[in-house]
Amino acid sequence: MSLSVTEPFDAIARSNVNSAWGALTMEVLARLGVNTVVTSPGSRSTPLTIAAARNARVEALSILDERSAAFYALGLAKRTRRPVALVCTSGSAAVNYWPAVLEASMSGTPLIIMTADRPAELRDCSSGQTIDQLKLYGDSVRQFKELALPECSPEMLAYLRQSLVHAVHLSLSANAGPVHLNFPFRDPLPPSLDASQPVVEAAVLEEAATVSTRPCEAVLQAGGLDLVALERLSSHSRGLIIVGTENPRCGDEAFANAVSMISKKLGWPVLADVLNPLRNYASEDRRVITRYDTFLRESGEQASLQPTAILQIGSLPTSKVLRAWLGQLNAVSFLLSASPINTDPLHRVATPLYGDVLSLAEHLQHQRVDSDWASKWTTLEARQSQAIDECMENLDTLFEGKVAWLLSRHLPVGSSVFLASSMSVRYAEYFWSAGSRACAVFCNRGANGIDGTLSTALGVAHGGRPAFLLTGDLAFLHDSNGLLASSQLRGSLTVVLINNNGGGIFEHLPVAQMDPPFEQYFSTPQNVDPGQLCAAYRVPHQVVNDWSQLVNALTKSSEPGLRVLELLTDRKADRLQLHKFHQ
Amino acid sequence: MSLSVTEPFDAIARSNVNSAWGALTMEVLARLGVNTVVTSPGSRSTPLTIAAARNARVEALSILDERSAAFYALGLAKRTRRPVALVCTSGSAAVNYWPAVLEASMSGTPLIIMTADRPAELRDCSSGQTIDQLKLYGDSVRQFKELALPECSPEMLAYLRQSLVHAVHLSLSANAGPVHLNFPFRDPLPPSLDASQPVVEAAVLEEAATVSTRPCEAVLQAGGLDLVALERLSSHSRGLIIVGTENPRCGDEAFANAVSMISKKLGWPVLADVLNPLRNYASEDRRVITRYDTFLRESGEQASLQPTAILQIGSLPTSKVLRAWLGQLNAVSFLLSASPINTDPLHRVATPLYGDVLSLAEHLQHQRVDSDWASKWTTLEARQSQAIDECMENLDTLFEGKVAWLLSRHLPVGSSVFLASSMSVRYAEYFWSAGSRACAVFCNRGANGIDGTLSTALGVAHGGRPAFLLTGDLAFLHDSNGLLASSQLRGSLTVVLINNNGGGIFEHLPVAQMDPPFEQYFSTPQNVDPGQLCAAYRVPHQVVNDWSQLVNALTKSSEPGLRVLELLTDRKADRLQLHKFHQ
Repeated sequence: MSLSVTEPFDAIARSNVNSAWGALTMEVLARLGVNTVVTSPGSRSTPLTIAAARNARVEALSILDERSAAFYALGLAKRTRRPVALVCTSGSAAVNYWPAVLEASMSGTPLIIMTADRPAELRDCSSGQTIDQLKLYGDSVRQFKELALPECSPEMLAYLRQSLVHAVHLSLSANAGPVHLNFPFRDPLPPSLDASQPVVEAAVLEEAATVSTRPCEAVLQAGGLDLVALERLSSHSRGLIIVGTENPRCGDEAFANAVSMISKKLGWPVLADVLNPLRNYASEDRRVITRYDTFLRESGEQASLQPTAILQIGSLPTSKVLRAWLGQLNAVSFLLSASPINTDPLHRVATPLYGDVLSLAEHLQHQRVDSDWASKWTTLEARQSQAIDECMENLDTLFEGKVAWLLSRHLPVGSSVFLASSMSVRYAEYFWSAGSRACAVFCNRGANGIDGTLSTALGVAHGGRPAFLLTGDLAFLHDSNGLLASSQLRGSLTVVLINNNGGGIFEHLPVAQMDPPFEQYFSTPQNVDPGQLCAAYRVPHQVVNDWSQLVNALTKSSEPGLRVLELLTDRKADRLQLHKFHQ
Repeated sequence: MSLSVTEPFDAIARSNVNSAWGALTMEVLARLGVNTVVTSPGSRSTPLTIAAARNARVEALSILDERSAAFYALGLAKRTRRPVALVCTSGSAAVNYWPAVLEASMSGTPLIIMTADRPAELRDCSSGQTIDQLKLYGDSVRQFKELALPECSPEMLAYLRQSLVHAVHLSLSANAGPVHLNFPFRDPLPPSLDASQPVVEAAVLEEAATVSTRPCEAVLQAGGLDLVALERLSSHSRGLIIVGTENPRCGDEAFANAVSMISKKLGWPVLADVLNPLRNYASEDRRVITRYDTFLRESGEQASLQPTAILQIGSLPTSKVLRAWLGQLNAVSFLLSASPINTDPLHRVATPLYGDVLSLAEHLQHQRVDSDWASKWTTLEARQSQAIDECMENLDTLFEGKVAWLLSRHLPVGSSVFLASSMSVRYAEYFWSAGSRACAVFCNRGANGIDGTLSTALGVAHGGRPAFLLTGDLAFLHDSNGLLASSQLRGSLTVVLINNNGGGIFEHLPVAQMDPPFEQYFSTPQNVDPGQLCAAYRVPHQVVNDWSQLVNALTKSSEPGLRVLELLTDRKADRLQLHKFHQ
């Protein structure tokens, strides 16, 4: 057997996981348009170096001194305006890249720096030639990514591919420059020459190497959008627009109008998360779909709803049902985001588009529309909405989900709404009705924390339109110190506090069946009386006993200051009610 | 005029601040035993390079490539086991030190890396040859220090000297390795050849260059203590031991015994902060002085109390009066600390001693003691203590300072005490009586914050002896969320809450005379009722109206759980009362 250039996924490349990982890395880079790799000799980087040397689409140059290697790559990247890849071994080798990395950072030159590293168990224990390579180049790279140890499952190979896709895109983005990928490898490092038992089939690697983007050939215009990618996107008639969390810089209404225009030009329905302005600026022509969490649960519906393309704007919606459904589709995906972050935890075959939604709406051409496709979705939406509305109207018990449904129908037009993390945002995602109330919906969805809930809502309310906070008792108590800040509020905030004395979200987890320790360590009922707490801070407080009281209180609640409306609910009964709803 | 080797502080060296700063740097390094400096050519580093070239005690080597320069210095430092200094210009030059810095870090080789930099106003604005040099080497240096811009006041020169003293000591400490000093310089960079008007007198620089340590020649033995320094320390008979904040690893009693032994062997009195175990393990023979804040205010006393040497253990005490007095002494100082940090914001001529107090107590020899010296201090202490006790005993009004005095006399033996930052710790520092109640005193004195006060006190109480928290209302309310944690307490915590509805400490600042904005933005009365707050969390609460109620409650307060004793006081009246006390 020979180790010379051959097809990328031959038996030797597949003789162990490290070799397969290296082979996929080089093949994906080549398909993305990164065709030169500068390697420096070393042992730990063997899987990457051999893959570079054996891949026919890659020019692999070997330069002894890593400092020279990196400057050589820098010069080539400066001239060609394409990223050049670097491969070195673990230890001080990577440190010698520093001077060129710095120059690349400051001159905006794209480099893909790939440093091999020992696995976690061999770090920080005086094993040889091991330094701390994490975030080695500090702020001088556009991205530092510590990769997982090689594995050959389709999911892990998809993760490797998308990591490379995003790294190459980042290196070429408006803020172009070097990116640093740190590759841990366990022994054995070289491929096995007795490659009679490959660890993975060639077809799996071939499938994993599918890329839908050629970033190095992208034509960029106004808005920084990739026009080549846009043309591919427009060629699909059965597509879907997915809009997740978004606090658009252009303002809610302009955002909603832009998405509406994209939807109209393409003929694609829009699946809109509750944290997106779309639901509150919805009207007939906008094809806004909000009840997907319910009707995608029915497997009968799913088959007829398969799209061939997805345009995701911002991050994914909250709905787990939607995420699972998207994950198993065989559709080309485009990820539009204003900032250069990876918004896809599903690692789909996807093309990042860094740019803003206004430019996209403007640049797209009107396409021939498949009206059957859209009406299939809008019909389902109408049917499901009607069913939910009927259920809710007839529901007298204090079901927590009905609070979100009522808020979406009775808040003053133009209100601000802050949704606490945990169950509050989920109930809104399930039951918030689309309409034209022009509410601005906020949530601390960056890290999904329950901390700072009341204080953030006070900030949202400050100097603006009347605001409402929907929260459970744990999120409220976690930031009860926010009550101290209420004296500073210039504006109006009404807290709708759903008090089920504990963390309702945990009731939906398998651990709910294990008590002890469930109540003491998960639900954690705090047994605090919100009425007395409010009295200590001189904040008005009212217990709400039925739905008409709540609607009354909501419509009268725009006077200045902070007030708390408390609904006492039963989290065990609530879980059962939600379960019934989903069936 | 010539720029060749001459005396370090000649007219050329003093022709501008940059040159003087560079000259002092090189002279101090030389006196500390760092006699080789490797420079690489560049403009921004001119003040350091010229000073190195002109100082007769320094061997200055010029090596073009910074990577080679650093490795050359590394080799020399490895052989001689002394730090070697490096000087380079701003920009990518410093980055080329990285490979050798890394090796120095991992092999424990001392290097003093001095990188020149542009001043703040020329950073991050695309001025040439400027990179972000802050924390450039990440975790690979024992210290990163951004120095101030050069100035020639005695205070700033003392700061430069002590920065160098600590950097050299750190590079040689038990965890030896490289340190990084970043020197910003403004133009003009070279000295003026027309040096007819020096910016500073030679005597000022000569005085500033006084060092009391030769770290490179230190003989280290058990406990890592510098035996050469100890010999110098022992030669003084009129010395003082200053003990500040300390949470000794060896335990309170062992610590108190060790300090007592040091005091006995040297014949030096001990000035002990309230946050130090000394005050609670004090007996006749221990020469513990606690009333210094009062009697050092009298200028008549001060003259006869001048020491020639100071041994500071841990950080400085809280007392501002003591700090000011120490700052103007002409005494050699030794700074003993278990961890390698600079504990002297006064920048005195000081020798760092990294080690523990038990080793020091053991290693010191008994010295000939000047008994007049100690008795001068103990007499003053006795007189002042008596005066305070008489005042306090006769005081019926709810003066906040009396709470600390009462706690020190009535807490159960062996209690834990947590003092909130701000006025609580200050009142304790003024009025906590020395005794043998074996209390363990704690405070979040690391960053002096009022945040987390109640939660920390709960942690101190958890699973230990009955604990007491002395706090004002702002610190208490700042962590009112700690009340949520009280359900987890296994132990007893009594909160003594001094409620003067606002921040009493601000009453002592000049800004107190400016209202508005004083009340709204400094005192910030929160108008929260602690009784109702406690009720919300089911925490027992009692308002204390006079001193006998307080003493009663304290002595009966060891049952499990959290309880709050609230004293309502008047912060304006309190300030006047404290003022009267100090007179």
